[in-house]
Amino acid sequence: MKAIQQIAFGLESLKLVELPTPTPAPHEVLVKIEAVSLNYLDVALATGTYSKELPLPRIPTSDGAGVVAAVGENVTKWKVGDRVMLHYNQLWQHGLPSRQTDHVRIGVSTPGLLSEYTVVPEYALVRTPSNLTSTEAATLPVAGVTAWTGLVSYAGIKPGQTVLTQGTGGVSLFSLQIALAAGAKVIATSSSPDKLKKLQALGAHEVVDYKKYPEWHTEVKRLSGGEGAHATIDVAGAATISNSVKSMRYNGFVGLVGFMTGAQLPVDLFAAVGSYVRLQAYSVGSLESFEHLAAAIEINNIHPVIDSVFSINDAQEAFRYMGGSTNQFGKIVIELK
Amino acid sequence: MKAIQQIAFGLESLKLVELPTPTPAPHEVLVKIEAVSLNYLDVALATGTYSKELPLPRIPTSDGAGVVAAVGENVTKWKVGDRVMLHYNQLWQHGLPSRQTDHVRIGVSTPGLLSEYTVVPEYALVRTPSNLTSTEAATLPVAGVTAWTGLVSYAGIKPGQTVLTQGTGGVSLFSLQIALAAGAKVIATSSSPDKLKKLQALGAHEVVDYKKYPEWHTEVKRLSGGEGAHATIDVAGAATISNSVKSMRYNGFVGLVGFMTGAQLPVDLFAAVGSYVRLQAYSVGSLESFEHLAAAIEINNIHPVIDSVFSINDAQEAFRYMGGSTNQFGKIVIELK
Amino acid sequence: MKAIQQIAFGLESLKLVELPTPTPAPHEVLVKIEAVSLNYLDVALATGTYSKELPLPRIPTSDGAGVVAAVGENVTKWKVGDRVMLHYNQLWQHGLPSRQTDHVRIGVSTPGLLSEYTVVPEYALVRTPSNLTSTEAATLPVAGVTAWTGLVSYAGIKPGQTVLTQGTGGVSLFSLQIALAAGAKVIATSSSPDKLKKLQALGAHEVVDYKKYPEWHTEVKRLSGGEGAHATIDVAGAATISNSVKSMRYNGFVGLVGFMTGAQLPVDLFAAVGSYVRLQAYSVGSLESFEHLAAAIEINNIHPVIDSVFSINDAQEAFRYMGGSTNQFGKIVIELK
Amino acid sequence: MKAIQQIAFGLESLKLVELPTPTPAPHEVLVKIEAVSLNYLDVALATGTYSKELPLPRIPTSDGAGVVAAVGENVTKWKVGDRVMLHYNQLWQHGLPSRQTDHVRIGVSTPGLLSEYTVVPEYALVRTPSNLTSTEAATLPVAGVTAWTGLVSYAGIKPGQTVLTQGTGGVSLFSLQIALAAGAKVIATSSSPDKLKKLQALGAHEVVDYKKYPEWHTEVKRLSGGEGAHATIDVAGAATISNSVKSMRYNGFVGLVGFMTGAQLPVDLFAAVGSYVRLQAYSVGSLESFEHLAAAIEINNIHPVIDSVFSINDAQEAFRYMGGSTNQFGKIVIELK
Repeated sequence: MKAIQQIAFGLESLKLVELPTPTPAPHEVLVKIEAVSLNYLDVALATGTYSKELPLPRIPTSDGAGVVAAVGENVTKWKVGDRVMLHYNQLWQHGLPSRQTDHVRIGVSTPGLLSEYTVVPEYALVRTPSNLTSTEAATLPVAGVTAWTGLVSYAGIKPGQTVLTQGTGGVSLFSLQIALAAGAKVIATSSSPDKLKKLQALGAHEVVDYKKYPEWHTEVKRLSGGEGAHATIDVAGAATISNSVKSMRYNGFVGLVGFMTGAQLPVDLFAAVGSYVRLQAYSVGSLESFEHLAAAIEINNIHPVIDSVFSINDAQEAFRYMGGSTNQFGKIVIELK
Repeated sequence: MKAIQQIAFGLESLKLVELPTPTPAPHEVLVKIEAVSLNYLDVALATGTYSKELPLPRIPTSDGAGVVAAVGENVTKWKVGDRVMLHYNQLWQHGLPSRQTDHVRIGVSTPGLLSEYTVVPEYALVRTPSNLTSTEAATLPVAGVTAWTGLVSYAGIKPGQTVLTQGTGGVSLFSLQIALAAGAKVIATSSSPDKLKKLQALGAHEVVDYKKYPEWHTEVKRLSGGEGAHATIDVAGAATISNSVKSMRYNGFVGLVGFMTGAQLPVDLFAAVGSYVRLQAYSVGSLESFEHLAAAIEINNIHPVIDSVFSINDAQEAFRYMGGSTNQFGKIVIELK
Repeated sequence: MKAIQQIAFGLESLKLVELPTPTPAPHEVLVKIEAVSLNYLDVALATGTYSKELPLPRIPTSDGAGVVAAVGENVTKWKVGDRVMLHYNQLWQHGLPSRQTDHVRIGVSTPGLLSEYTVVPEYALVRTPSNLTSTEAATLPVAGVTAWTGLVSYAGIKPGQTVLTQGTGGVSLFSLQIALAAGAKVIATSSSPDKLKKLQALGAHEVVDYKKYPEWHTEVKRLSGGEGAHATIDVAGAATISNSVKSMRYNGFVGLVGFMTGAQLPVDLFAAVGSYVRLQAYSVGSLESFEHLAAAIEINNIHPVIDSVFSINDAQEAFRYMGGSTNQFGKIVIELK
Repeated sequence: MKAIQQIAFGLESLKLVELPTPTPAPHEVLVKIEAVSLNYLDVALATGTYSKELPLPRIPTSDGAGVVAAVGENVTKWKVGDRVMLHYNQLWQHGLPSRQTDHVRIGVSTPGLLSEYTVVPEYALVRTPSNLTSTEAATLPVAGVTAWTGLVSYAGIKPGQTVLTQGTGGVSLFSLQIALAAGAKVIATSSSPDKLKKLQALGAHEVVDYKKYPEWHTEVKRLSGGEGAHATIDVAGAATISNSVKSMRYNGFVGLVGFMTGAQLPVDLFAAVGSYVRLQAYSVGSLESFEHLAAAIEINNIHPVIDSVFSINDAQEAFRYMGGSTNQFGKIVIELK
């Protein structure tokens, strides 16, 4: 089978190779991957920024969707032809995570998905919503589930509440779409007038240009009757946490997931106590959350926002675009078909 | 001012009278009532079915909306001209109810709202959503808040979950509208093909004719992939509780609020344990819940379903229609203007 | 190995037999059972009262503890000699139960534990608290976990709250001990002055003789400052549910688990709404809850209350005592050593 | 009446003065203060470290207990002679706080309690537990409620969980006592061998000398089977937050309340995500939480730990001791009798 292998750190070392197609053991499923999507972590892992200790060579990427191509012995949940998405935190099935459930992550502790076929345990798949193509579905496992876990599982957003979304990456656009499906009001930020218009076209009730308003929390407060937002997912880290906290309403929720601008978060206690903020650190989500997200996507006919689609032959280019661009609006997908 | 007074039990004893207009004391507000809506309890109270111990004469009805006409000393929250709705459980402000918060209920322990003016404490009002007329807003305080408390405050419904609504009374149609705003799938029941069509037009994903399927829980299960619904509010009581319980998914929520068909609920333990059902008895909701509902109504531009509008001169007729009809679809309103 | 087999319905058909000792497959563990305890369900299953459809012959009982005797391939969590308790709802591991997690129950859908050895999946065991003998530990899996799930997982009892316990069976005595460990006030009922004294000796703050007070909810209210209890587990069913509901404080919790006096529960809506009661049907609990219980037992040095201990040769007698006695105070254990 | 007035910033400007005794208006209560206790905030306010904008002269301190001396018109909840404690966040009654409930704080936005008499709204009092003197009770309103809100209301600690307490100030010793009452395991830190012994005498299961182990999170992990603690309240701020986060078990809770060592908290995202930590900023708690604490104190016969008692004549000395000492073990009280 065709696969992309990272043979050394650096994007230029992502090579198209031919590897043997794996065979499913009992309780395992062979999935023909039709599409993967990229996350910021993929770039940080590929360049070695995140850690130099990852064993090489490795197949990169964590997010994917495809079709069941074969099932191992004793698999009853799936059959050949089922359209499926791959669950990232494989062992985190229900309820809260634990040390035991947290040590398997696709593309980090196991081979990634940028190959024509992959084998996963039967419990690590979710049925693809009937309204989505595999290209669309490949965007859900990390970015979609991260948005869902923050806004729905942790923050429990309700109709009529206000959700703040930050920028136009995958997690933030899913946050916007999930918030709208949940009946919330959305205030969305971006630094580009063009993207602000696109955010409004997607349904954002209010938008804030954070270049124009470096202290954008004041705009968030103004646009929410002086109260602030009920929930946000901070995707950038060090550079945004202060504004995130100050944008919050009493008892607000700030999901801590992002480190693009630095992982040392300067939290001002007085600002935080000033509105009883909850800062919740987490990573992606459970199988159960993923299944709930899939149901919500289907019932509400949500289509993920895709910035661009690359072929497997252009994988390096896709990674470079993910790492470098400031013009993205949605997810970057690599198709394998 | 004009008012309807119940001078004896029986609908024929609801009389149009002239009463002195009240004056607000400190921390009180005088509201010009523009509309009230009827609930099944109003009929049960007026006929004496519910209790014969209510002191007479009394002004009936519990649900209403209007405009602030005057404010007492020290009132800072409201000003003349503010459009407001009246909160039913006046003392239940935040969090959970208690014996202390539960003993004041408009139209039961205090004068009702079927009069041109009424005086209430400043803390017992909620701002009318900007997208609603007072006629629409008058339907929210009891039926709307009851639906909200059950589905949102208690059951915490999420996008993609399944909500079962029962019939076409006020609570059930608000349940349908709130569930849709929250991104849920709705299965709605009715005994009339005509109403089932109207339910679909309102957005119900699936409908069940409970006359055709007396054991309608089997249909609810079938229409939810064999799993059942996540939440329902049982509005009829003795006749429906068994089907309500059997319609539930694992960990399902059944709100217990209705007694139209009897208040002795036969609960089958094995059916209940079979899906770990939660049966939650409650009555209406808190000011905070009402404010959350109002925000949700406005953000999602929900318009309550009104069956019919009467004038204050036809109050008796409105009560008779409320008590007798099986053709209602939504709320019955009496306008006072 | 020695085992008790039920060869026909009826307690006289519980026979001591010799069966082959099972062998653990990969991911399975062979446990030498040292003690089992009896629950009311065991008697109902053995007599055929509960259902006549159970396939016979079968090994009865659901509750047990022992020592790991051998481990199958790939088992890393356990080693020979580990002291363990057997988890009843094997597939219910974390969070809430589901149709998928609910269909395996030891002694109902799988062989029971009244045999010298049994084989279970590695994920269906909990380490025995260091302060307990196996005889004591054998009482935890059903009765202990049922009390924990109700009072801690669902009701979330807090220090200073009031817990009502009903009678002196296993679930109720665990409720008392767990409530005390959690810093709650306990009001305990019984029909015998002698047992009331024992309940006080165990730490009950107040006791109520329900023979003397058939309307014992009035006593519960009186002994809790007129407010009622925050939580109770109704273990008897039809005969007690009405008093259980009326004993509750606002927002009280009634766990529905018992059917000894009938499974058709007559719930009075007005009484239930009168204090916003939550009725929660459930069965036993998750592995996670069991692990939490085990930690609580150890940290607080709780010793389960054992009514009597039988040998495997006297198994019929033990079942008869369980089914017939009204004098029990705590759990009935059968030792296999 | 006698009172302490702060006439300028600086502890030397706390002066004993004679002021007119206030009179309760309708719905108000006159309380004869018998004891107040000191918190770190009192010193920061008195020295002007916290803010220079506080209007002077002012009566300091926020924590107190005494006896009802007179009641205003319409007060039904209290009568002369009732023993009471004063609620700090007066308007925060039930549920979650809001901008509206948060702007009144005794001793900050209203006169403090270091005077023989004070007047408060009838809703801002809690009955003193029958097992406490006023001297003991005066320690509860801020430190006790802060510990309760964090561990019980937010973290929902359960029997068998592990609570980490930091040092020997008021909040931490209440945390220890509440955690023990709730059936939790306690790991307590201090820098002094002597105090570590006292912590053990109070019931701490494990103790850690943080002077000996500057990276004390490794000890906390070791003493909790490698897992970490379920909950802690970080009382020192900048200097401890990093160790607090790293001491946490998966899904752990860190209450953010303290700023003694700085209010800029450096939070490491990777450490936080590594165990899905919740950082919850808050301040003290609601009347409802205070009432729950009082019930827990009484049922479990908890006696607050008092470091030392001063007379009103030695108020300056008490403040100096509060601000300077590193030898405190428990609360510092000033008696007014």
